[in-house]
Amino acid sequence: MKIIIDAFGGDNAPLEVLKGVSLAKSEVSVSLAVTGDKQKILECATQNNIDIEGVEIIDAPTVIETEDDPKVVLKAKKDSSMAVGLSMVANDSADAFVSAGSTAALLMGATMIVGRIKGVKRPALGAVIPSANGKYLLLDCGANSECRPEMLAQFGAMGSAYVKHILGIDAPKVGLANNGAEESKGTAVQIDAFKLLSKNKNINFIGNVEGRDIPKGAADVVVADGFTGNIILKVIEGLSMTLFGMLKEIFYKSLSTKLAAAVLKPGLREFKKKFDYTEEGGAPFIGVKKPIIKAHGSSNAKAFKNAIKQAEKWAKSDVLTEIERLI
Amino acid sequence: MKIIIDAFGGDNAPLEVLKGVSLAKSEVSVSLAVTGDKQKILECATQNNIDIEGVEIIDAPTVIETEDDPKVVLKAKKDSSMAVGLSMVANDSADAFVSAGSTAALLMGATMIVGRIKGVKRPALGAVIPSANGKYLLLDCGANSECRPEMLAQFGAMGSAYVKHILGIDAPKVGLANNGAEESKGTAVQIDAFKLLSKNKNINFIGNVEGRDIPKGAADVVVADGFTGNIILKVIEGLSMTLFGMLKEIFYKSLSTKLAAAVLKPGLREFKKKFDYTEEGGAPFIGVKKPIIKAHGSSNAKAFKNAIKQAEKWAKSDVLTEIERLI
Repeated sequence: MKIIIDAFGGDNAPLEVLKGVSLAKSEVSVSLAVTGDKQKILECATQNNIDIEGVEIIDAPTVIETEDDPKVVLKAKKDSSMAVGLSMVANDSADAFVSAGSTAALLMGATMIVGRIKGVKRPALGAVIPSANGKYLLLDCGANSECRPEMLAQFGAMGSAYVKHILGIDAPKVGLANNGAEESKGTAVQIDAFKLLSKNKNINFIGNVEGRDIPKGAADVVVADGFTGNIILKVIEGLSMTLFGMLKEIFYKSLSTKLAAAVLKPGLREFKKKFDYTEEGGAPFIGVKKPIIKAHGSSNAKAFKNAIKQAEKWAKSDVLTEIERLI
Repeated sequence: MKIIIDAFGGDNAPLEVLKGVSLAKSEVSVSLAVTGDKQKILECATQNNIDIEGVEIIDAPTVIETEDDPKVVLKAKKDSSMAVGLSMVANDSADAFVSAGSTAALLMGATMIVGRIKGVKRPALGAVIPSANGKYLLLDCGANSECRPEMLAQFGAMGSAYVKHILGIDAPKVGLANNGAEESKGTAVQIDAFKLLSKNKNINFIGNVEGRDIPKGAADVVVADGFTGNIILKVIEGLSMTLFGMLKEIFYKSLSTKLAAAVLKPGLREFKKKFDYTEEGGAPFIGVKKPIIKAHGSSNAKAFKNAIKQAEKWAKSDVLTEIERLI
């Protein structure tokens, strides 16, 4: 089994990618490979004393930039670190792919090069988010701004499979993000999606979940169209950051508050760790034939390591066959 | 000038409503009136020693329940505390109305009984939300699940008028809630709303605001359709509650953490106060001919008092003429 990592994706590439790969080496039981300009990869590893022995380097001279039209992944930049990695996954030379590069290009490449699981209308980008009492998967977080009800219904099934096998929650509670609890709430899309989700007896659909109940962990899988899901995810990120920033100010106000904060430190560290995206790895792109993980653009070595471990777990799991069964 | 308060709206009616009216009496310079079952109002005030001297009581025997079809406000329950208050505002016997009753009934009643400002396509429910560095108005928060681009464009103008005159922010920054910063982001509705908002030279449109930047206070007016706005508002409420709850656990863990938390108390109290909805009063229903405020269903006396003060400020302001100018 082999996992490929895009060495030239993200704000801190290739340095943090290679450091992450190096950290992951001893924690996974699969072989690792990186794609990108071989010369630069070797130079970066040597200059920074990063041990990447045993990691295969697959030469791919170009890089997809965030500003690039996502379509370049299919043709103009077929030789990019991203396209080369996706092609290897597509032709079964590898089992999973991790990239912190352009989201739009990765989603397009994953859909067009790797391809959808049979029966899947549209793959969805997921995000694993901490709640009061655990974690939940929110999908779609931005792959499909507008969704038909059938797409939302499939997201419920796909998310259910992922959460069961990767987060280890049996019969995960699937909820539809909505502006009220009643069946009649939302736009025409939500109303119809509610009906379709109710009909799927293979999943544990608990009905609509309101915004207020999402962070409390009311559902293990929160289904939304990509527009709404993206806003939910980012409001959560932004508000957490804002509140943590305000807390920090209170703690650093004076010598006595600093001393008091020191006593609370172990608890606060736990608290912060819970909301630390680098712990989660990356965002799974669910519905394509192989595990594809979009790492955060600002990922550091630890985030890359965790994304690689997440890819290993996913590649070794039954998520893909479970999706076929549930949709 | 007269402000009417629905004595039978909300979970704690009429007790907390009357207490709130009593508190407000000495803080406002307008006359106050309450609507509802006169006998019950007098009994409640006497039994609980609430001073409502000088407050007019307008007898209205029935109450609109949350489960009621919102249409009852127009016909079947024309004699309800809510409908009577709205009718008085509509026929110029009063200048503003505050209710913590059924949101759907209040919005329907305000639109149909009080009526829209000339040119306004659809009124919107606003919410004033604390940010890192102040406050912003989010609208629509749930009056219109589905919106056409022209409606969103008007929300920007209406919100701008409200924020200028009520929050006292000159040339308020108007942002469109979206899943990306670029003009091309969002669904067809956002793309067209962006164009319309850009064209309105009377407002200070700053473009799209991403979920991450909303809690940071990137815009003073955040425009969204009612579905998205409702989810944003409630995710913020839910996440704040979740995070505060987790913090509390850390603080109460042991004697030493309790002592440390005591040192931080003044700062934390300020912090909590900032995120306390009872400080804000209620949600303004913007776009109808008179100020209508939806108080939170669980409002206590302080929240009612603040909603009444907010109504006074609004009634005395130029918001309504400013809206006519801007749309």
